[in-house]
Amino acid sequence: MLIIGERINGTRKNIKEGIESRDKQLIKKEIKKQIESGAHYIDLNAGIGKGKEREKEDIKWLIECLYEVGEYPVCIDSADPDVIDFALSFVKTDDKMINSINGEKEKIDKILPIIKKYPESKIICLTMDENGIPSDSKKRVEIAERVIKILNEAGVKNENIFVDCLVEPVSVNTQNGIVFLQALKEVKKFGVKTTCGLSNVSFGLPNRKLINKYFLALCIYEGIDSAIIDPTVSDIKEAICIAEMLTGKDEFCMNYIKGIRCNIF
Amino acid sequence: MLIIGERINGTRKNIKEGIESRDKQLIKKEIKKQIESGAHYIDLNAGIGKGKEREKEDIKWLIECLYEVGEYPVCIDSADPDVIDFALSFVKTDDKMINSINGEKEKIDKILPIIKKYPESKIICLTMDENGIPSDSKKRVEIAERVIKILNEAGVKNENIFVDCLVEPVSVNTQNGIVFLQALKEVKKFGVKTTCGLSNVSFGLPNRKLINKYFLALCIYEGIDSAIIDPTVSDIKEAICIAEMLTGKDEFCMNYIKGIRCNIF
Repeated sequence: MLIIGERINGTRKNIKEGIESRDKQLIKKEIKKQIESGAHYIDLNAGIGKGKEREKEDIKWLIECLYEVGEYPVCIDSADPDVIDFALSFVKTDDKMINSINGEKEKIDKILPIIKKYPESKIICLTMDENGIPSDSKKRVEIAERVIKILNEAGVKNENIFVDCLVEPVSVNTQNGIVFLQALKEVKKFGVKTTCGLSNVSFGLPNRKLINKYFLALCIYEGIDSAIIDPTVSDIKEAICIAEMLTGKDEFCMNYIKGIRCNIF
Repeated sequence: MLIIGERINGTRKNIKEGIESRDKQLIKKEIKKQIESGAHYIDLNAGIGKGKEREKEDIKWLIECLYEVGEYPVCIDSADPDVIDFALSFVKTDDKMINSINGEKEKIDKILPIIKKYPESKIICLTMDENGIPSDSKKRVEIAERVIKILNEAGVKNENIFVDCLVEPVSVNTQNGIVFLQALKEVKKFGVKTTCGLSNVSFGLPNRKLINKYFLALCIYEGIDSAIIDPTVSDIKEAICIAEMLTGKDEFCMNYIKGIRCNIF
């Protein structure tokens, strides 16, 4: 499973402060920890609520920090297509992710020309549109189908499309877990890849890590291909390792036995 | 989910000793612990390898122990239909389980007349036959279908048939987890109930409780109706509570919040 390390995000207090004070050591330490914990991509989100021009400067600086650690694949994460376009011009690796496109017409019109410049990039596609996140899985799958078609026509291969069916908190609606998993199962049938922002599921509840790890196991059972997670959390490592073993992806249980022996979880 | 408490089993060292020395206090304590932990049925297995007549005496004594604790529903568990027949004559409650029937012709011929005496009993049906446990899920489902038909003809309703698709260790074959879950999913389509002996999945591996709880969560996600488990293990309580919440069976997450607040797991 591909792990997209979520820690470098301007909405996190310590990262916001690190960005504002240009604290390279803090950011580089956060990047290093995630790489050492098995992150395949480092998500960079420089949104600290101070406008587009500031976000451009900040994400450029975050990319510099990343490359001072090493030329690791990046996931460029912004709500603003202009910021994504600007950031991508500084990315050195062919292997990269764009986070994200969704079903909104305006968003598609703005982001599609950028995607066409980098047709080999991986694209995260959120199953929402002008009307927000559909409450049922069927409509999320319809949005995914529509955007996949548009991306295919723009030259993006299915193997590079990562559909995120949008995990919502079970504390808000008891059915939110099931709606996500049902949509995930259906979207897999299109032959694309899938991802999710895992931790939303436990929003508003106590002991969130405990919930997140079980939900990750269910996602892995349904064949999720990647997740935007904090790979430094030992519960996350435990869930990935055991769920992969239980779903036939750990030959001779070697990863599990190594995980136990080396106290990885 | 129905919990069948597995602790009173003659293959366990302390239980074997308790049976042999007629230690009522030990057996009653084990029963009480399971009831207090939420067991809906108490499995009684008196097999200590000393022959049929001894097993009859012993299971009669175990039933006496149970009723000294309270008139709780029992799951009569023996490889020998004569022992099951004898034991059932001492069971006072209408609500009871017979453990088990399977696809072997000889077994069916012997157990069917007993089942007909108690057509309202719940029956555990193992998906194995003269050739052992099929390695693929398709053949397990075929056995289930055949035995369900025989049970229906004997007057047993689908709601009283608990098919056990037989969990085998992932340490023996990496696909064993998936084969079970696939069979479970298919058997559910017949409209019967399902169960499993959970802990087999982790046989031969270190830190078994850690594996069992994730596997239980996957079983609950696939809609398992009951499990033969040790309800006193806090990992088991955690897995049931969180998996039920994540699959839409815990309104307003009340059980989960109670579980955390009361330190149940």
